[in-house]
Amino acid sequence: CCAVAAAAASLCSVRGLPFVRNLSNEPQDNYGRSGLSHITVAGAVSHGMKEIELWLQTFAPGTRTPIHRHSCEEVFIVLKGSGTLLLASSSHKYPGEPEKYQISVNSTFSIPVNDPHQIWNTNENEDLQVLVTISRPPVKIFIYDDWFMPHTAAKLKFPYYWDEECFHTPKDEL
Amino acid sequence: CCAVAAAAASLCSVRGLPFVRNLSNEPQDNYGRSGLSHITVAGAVSHGMKEIELWLQTFAPGTRTPIHRHSCEEVFIVLKGSGTLLLASSSHKYPGEPEKYQISVNSTFSIPVNDPHQIWNTNENEDLQVLVTISRPPVKIFIYDDWFMPHTAAKLKFPYYWDEECFHTPKDEL
Ligand SMILES: [Zn+2]
Ligand SMILES: [Zn+2]
Repeated sequence: CCAVAAAAASLCSVRGLPFVRNLSNEPQDNYGRSGLSHITVAGAVSHGMKEIELWLQTFAPGTRTPIHRHSCEEVFIVLKGSGTLLLASSSHKYPGEPEKYQISVNSTFSIPVNDPHQIWNTNENEDLQVLVTISRPPVKIFIYDDWFMPHTAAKLKFPYYWDEECFHTPKDEL
Repeated sequence: CCAVAAAAASLCSVRGLPFVRNLSNEPQDNYGRSGLSHITVAGAVSHGMKEIELWLQTFAPGTRTPIHRHSCEEVFIVLKGSGTLLLASSSHKYPGEPEKYQISVNSTFSIPVNDPHQIWNTNENEDLQVLVTISRPPVKIFIYDDWFMPHTAAKLKFPYYWDEECFHTPKDEL
């Protein structure tokens, strides 16, 4: 039990982390999503952030985020690869057919608050890597099955903590 | 007059900007600081951000930020080059001799709220490029002349808008 728990705890506590960290050494996980690599660059649980979070996410070819919306601000910068941003409106009963934007290295965009969106690695040959910044952690996220599901039917997940497992780490291991 | 003002206006209004922008085409300026290149990736004035701002900053060899503090959160990621982070405490009468941290590509760190700090490109041969995220724009910044100036004597600049010139653009040019 305890070596595993201690190892998990060491990823979850800001205590004991060096002040300057190296992103290439940071723990990554797919959090149950095949083809995803997520690194919490600066997070509420892991690093004590209160107003912003930064994530480094890599999507294998063909993989995508769920269709989702949130009321926090979110800014993307594409660091590697290319893909498609799908974006719909919050002003009708359901998102409807989304606008599609091609994105590639050095692309940056800010998701309008509450607009349903999805990031999709539509490049068959390359990983898509993005740096994501969000405001007001933890995210309150609404997830859609498809673009024609009513906004009111989208499934709420709150709080959305990537590193929520840290909450379950036994206190005496910390 | 008008072509220049119109050009400035086009950098200052979120209207007319493509939704997905390419960072390599974004306007940069040194804002009066020799050796600095600043790009507002996502900003309050330029892009209507309310809760976060992202900046891409490049420091020529030997150049540095002022010594400063702010109560907003700030996260750095080093994209190119190397340098030194200088960091002091807010818990004494003045900052005092700062801690020095070497930083290089893939380094990330979050500045503790209200702690005086300075980023310095101490590498003689290479530019230092960092991606900066801050919360709650506009920044309320306190600037120190040196590490031994009392916190209470630090000079307030508020609001600190990189793109404040946008405020002065004649309305009829927008
Ligand atoms: Zn999102
Ligand atoms: Zn700062």
